[in-house]
Order: sequence, then C-alpha cells, then structure tokens
Amino acid sequence: MSKFWSPGVSELTPYTPGEQPRERLIKLNTNENPCPPAPGVEQVLRDYSIDHLRLYPDPDSRALREALAREHGVEVEQVFVGNGSDEVLALAFQAFFRQPLPISMPAISYSFYPVYCRLYGVEHRTVALGDEWQVPLEAFDAQSGGIIFANPNAPTGHGHGRDAIEALLKRVTECVVLVDEAYVDFGGESAVPLVERYPNLLVTGTFSKSRSLAGLRLGYAIGSRELIEGLERIKNSFNSYPVDSLASAVGVAALEDKAYFEACRQQVITTRERTRRRLGELGFEVLPSQTNFLLVHHPDHEAAQLFVGLRERSILVRHFNTEALRDFMRISIGTDDEMDSLIEAMEAIIR
Amino acid sequence: MSKFWSPGVSELTPYTPGEQPRERLIKLNTNENPCPPAPGVEQVLRDYSIDHLRLYPDPDSRALREALAREHGVEVEQVFVGNGSDEVLALAFQAFFRQPLPISMPAISYSFYPVYCRLYGVEHRTVALGDEWQVPLEAFDAQSGGIIFANPNAPTGHGHGRDAIEALLKRVTECVVLVDEAYVDFGGESAVPLVERYPNLLVTGTFSKSRSLAGLRLGYAIGSRELIEGLERIKNSFNSYPVDSLASAVGVAALEDKAYFEACRQQVITTRERTRRRLGELGFEVLPSQTNFLLVHHPDHEAAQLFVGLRERSILVRHFNTEALRDFMRISIGTDDEMDSLIEAMEAIIR
Repeated sequence: MSKFWSPGVSELTPYTPGEQPRERLIKLNTNENPCPPAPGVEQVLRDYSIDHLRLYPDPDSRALREALAREHGVEVEQVFVGNGSDEVLALAFQAFFRQPLPISMPAISYSFYPVYCRLYGVEHRTVALGDEWQVPLEAFDAQSGGIIFANPNAPTGHGHGRDAIEALLKRVTECVVLVDEAYVDFGGESAVPLVERYPNLLVTGTFSKSRSLAGLRLGYAIGSRELIEGLERIKNSFNSYPVDSLASAVGVAALEDKAYFEACRQQVITTRERTRRRLGELGFEVLPSQTNFLLVHHPDHEAAQLFVGLRERSILVRHFNTEALRDFMRISIGTDDEMDSLIEAMEAIIR
Repeated sequence: MSKFWSPGVSELTPYTPGEQPRERLIKLNTNENPCPPAPGVEQVLRDYSIDHLRLYPDPDSRALREALAREHGVEVEQVFVGNGSDEVLALAFQAFFRQPLPISMPAISYSFYPVYCRLYGVEHRTVALGDEWQVPLEAFDAQSGGIIFANPNAPTGHGHGRDAIEALLKRVTECVVLVDEAYVDFGGESAVPLVERYPNLLVTGTFSKSRSLAGLRLGYAIGSRELIEGLERIKNSFNSYPVDSLASAVGVAALEDKAYFEACRQQVITTRERTRRRLGELGFEVLPSQTNFLLVHHPDHEAAQLFVGLRERSILVRHFNTEALRDFMRISIGTDDEMDSLIEAMEAIIR
C-alpha cells in the first residue's frame, strides 16, 4: 500500500501464472508445447539483420497480420495482433466490455477474465458449468454487456462445435461475444468462419500453445472490421508498436510451416489420449479434452497430496486452490517420455 | 463508430507515430539511432536455442532487471521493465495518475501523455514552456494528481540538471513525479540517483534510442520499491509476461557492451553539434539539444514547405502540425553522411 498509488490499485488481485521453475523439472504446469518451434524459426534468428532492430517496427504489424489473414481465410482488416493473447484480451475488455450492463462468463474458465474486470472496473456475472463441465451457452443472458468464454474451455478441456457457437450468436446480437480459442488446435472447432456473418463475434488465438512460442508473446484476434477498429483505437492510445520486429518475423515463419504444425498437434493429441487411458487405468477420473492438458481427479487421493508427491519426484503440474477445483489437477501434455515418468510417479504415489 | 464499442472509444484520439516508410529514404523522423545495436546482440540471435521459446518467459524478467539494476546502481526491486517505455508509461498512468486532482505536464512534451490521459480518464493541466523553451519546473503545482515531463524534453531538446529536478522534488512530495529520460544518454543528466531519497520519483528509460533497439520494444522504470510495486500490480492484472524471452536476452547483451554504447552516443553527439553548426550557417535557428534530434526553424522559409522539399529529395523529417510547432521541424541525428545529404538538400531548397 502506498499513498502514491491510484485509488483501487491496492485492491487489485493479480492473475497468478503457473510457476516458471529455475531447477530442472518435468514441467507440465503451464500448457506449453513439448515440440520445439518450427525449424523456420531458427532460420529467422540465424539470418536476421540486427541493423533492422535500430528502427521502430511497423506499427500496423502488416506482414504478421497478412500471414494470419491467409491462414484463417479472412481479410487483413479483420486481424488484430498483440503482445500475447493476454494483451489482446486486456485491450478487448477496454474496447468492448466497459458497458452499463455487466458482462457474463463461465464460473470456471481462464482465471484472468475476472482480473481484467477488476482492472477496468467491469462488473461481471458468472454462469455455472453444466453437469459434464461444459460451458452452458444457453445460460448466457442476451442482455449482457458482453460475453466471454474459452472454447475449448480451460481448465476443463471441453469444447463446443461451431453450430453451438452459431446458435448463441443468433440469440445474442447486441453485445460482443468473445470466444478465446487458445487451445482450439488440439481438437476443437474454430468459430473463425462465423466472423463473416456475425459482426459481434471476436475470436482470439495465441502462438503460445499450438505454435510452441509461449516465450515470444504473440496473440491475435479475428473479427469484423468494426471490432478490429475498436481494438486498434485502444492499442493506438496505449502502445503504438506492441509487437516487436523480431517476434513478427518469427511469427510469420511459424505460420508458414503447415506440415510441422500438423505433426506437432497430432503428436500432442496422440500423447494426450494415451495419457488419458493410462490415468484411467490408475483409477483417475479424467474429463475428455480437446486441449493440450487433462483435468484429473482421483476418488481416493487428495489432489493437493498428489501435487506434492509429484513435486517431490521433480514433476510439476497445476493445482488450483479454489473451492471448485481443489479436488483436481491440471496436467499439461508433454512428450511421451515425460508422460511415462508422470504415470510411473503416480503409480508410486497411489500404491 | 460501432454500437459494440465501450463508451468513449469513439472519442479516443490516438498518438500518431512518425511514418515508417517502406521505400528507401534517409529516415530522420523518429529519433532512431544511426548505429546498429551492439555486436553482442547479433551473437544472442545466432546462439539462441529456439527450444527455449516454447516455454513462457520469466514473468519477473529477473535477468533483465538485474542487468538494469547493475547499470543504474539500484536494487532489482527498484526496476520495472515493459514492452517499450510507451507501455511502461501507460501502466504508470494507471498505477499513479488516476487521482482526484488533475495531473500536470508541459504544454509541449511527448504527445503521448495527453493520449494516455484520455484512455484512462485522467484530467490534466499544462504549463507553458519558458522563454528558452525549457520546462518551467517552478510552475508545476505541488497540489497535483501527478507531474510528468520528459527530461531532456521532446521535441524541444532542452534538459534540466539533477539539481533542478531535486529542487522540484523538495517542493512536490505528495504525488508522483515521473521524469521520462528517453533521451538522457545524449547529453542530459539522469535523475536516477535521486530515487533513493525521493519515494515519489519515477524515472523511465528506453532501449529504443541510445541502445539502438527501437525494433525490440524494451523500456523500464526506476523508482522506490513502493512505486515499482504499484506498477507490478497493474502489470500482473494486465499481462503476466510483457517482455518476451528473446527481447530480454538481447537487452541484457546490449547493456553489457559499455564501450560500444559510449562510442555510439559520442558519435551521435558529435554529429548533432556539427549538424547544428551547419544549419546555423544556412540561417536556421536551432535550439540547443541534449538529445538525438534538433528542433529547427528558418525565419524565411515555412517549415511545411521545407518538409515537402526534403521529402521530394527522399529525406524524411518530422513536422508537427500543431499551433505551437507549425513553424518547426524536428530532425533526428543520423550518420554524418545522412546529415551531409540533409544539408545539401536544404541548401538546394532555400537558395
């Protein structure tokens, strides 16, 4: 607390990211991709002319936005980029969600959403998840200041198909519906093809998960021209050049290698299903997942205890100490070897 | 205008950065450094293990903050880093300037300050510059919500010594005084040594100018622990990882090469003084400058006309179309060859 802080700063509760340990651990706690970035990324770094770094970046990040537009079959004016999808989400809260009505979100979803609400003074209501832990799209009130959810959802792993999202958009027409697709490449169905018909749909994505570039901080949003213009207006009043030149070049290279991308996400999906089966054999209840993580629960063992047991064996997973999630662990999908070590450690702990 | 935007978004007036041309021009419009980044930067890119990019960065940017702390003789807890000093400034407005009283700033300074005010709903008052275009520190009201100015100031080039800043801090004790030192390495005197004694002093800096890394987006703030904690609170509610892993590594390398840094800034200072003399010989009035730019005026030629004449000769300088600055051009200091071309072009235009 300091008398120099703006009113409200002392009441902010930050988002708590997963630990980034310095020691050598099997790190299955922040949903990073076990595959390295595409080989073209290395080439960019080896060939990059550093003299270029003395100049400001393109404030419009044109090359990266064009690459994303090609990838997603939209126009460049429908693409916004930022310094990680966290930044894109924050700017979207400013651009669209500071409304007279409260916004709506699932009671369990990406825990950064309520943090943004507090930062920008946005009221929110939550809707409880359904029996199978799905986001109950039908429960969202059309009379909202906005609607936001992750699809597939985190940390639950369930995703809705495009038809279900479209049904929501047919009903909710007067506020922005933000679909956060951070995990969509691991088995979800993207809502991007709907942006052409629904001007209030904003879809966000990230290079952190399926592109193996969490360290680079690249995220994006795709939507109607009017929504992208709203984001640009906030961005241009905040930071003219949020995406640096090197990150842009790396992002473009990562998008170019479609075969590598396909192989990586298939590897993660295959390893996930194998891990799910083996955890099931150990008595875990494992929710189906369209993401690169599994949310797991063991009827006979406390999640906090399992977390500690794994940590003692140098394996780091994520345990959320909230009422709804206390009995669960979220396990990111690593390599097959890493998941074998996880299974072995679990066997040792629960036997 | 869109019905989906938050109230106020349509009234935002963005900061307008200098043009980033695609054609080949002599680019003297955005105060970039003519020297390439330190050779160690190239080494970082050549040696960087791209596998590291699949992991999230250190959310605390510890290595970069430690390097800055060593460079400035402060503790690591007194250093904050961000994605360009523009982002650091924006977060500082949120952390400190949303106060019941309006903040104070010079009538002519970095034109992003009033843009942040509009974005965050901060009222501001301005103080007119003095006769020699210096920031009149004595005119700042101690009863303010905060005080912000660039020192040396932009686009005027005048800088106050540390004693003058300290006199202000002795008088203004109840609000944050933010001294933006983007240009200080080109002949100014840094206020950083004062942070130990004045808990309300925040000094910001950037890698964009004297470190030749505008393309990388790295900025920082140095201040008391309580001010840095205020910034961290906003940052952790906005983007857990604003500085990417590669940018951090490059920033550390740039700070290490002190001899190269010294040589670059001396080169810029020498070229600036030479250019100033030669422009004077052509009849220009040139304000003294402690920065890497010159603000110039010709009594017999309109600045807008000169701007156009230079543009036709493939030389880009900055002309601000505001009442106070309409008669001036801001010319960034390039290489000696570039400044020779500028002088030749000026001779051709005004003769």
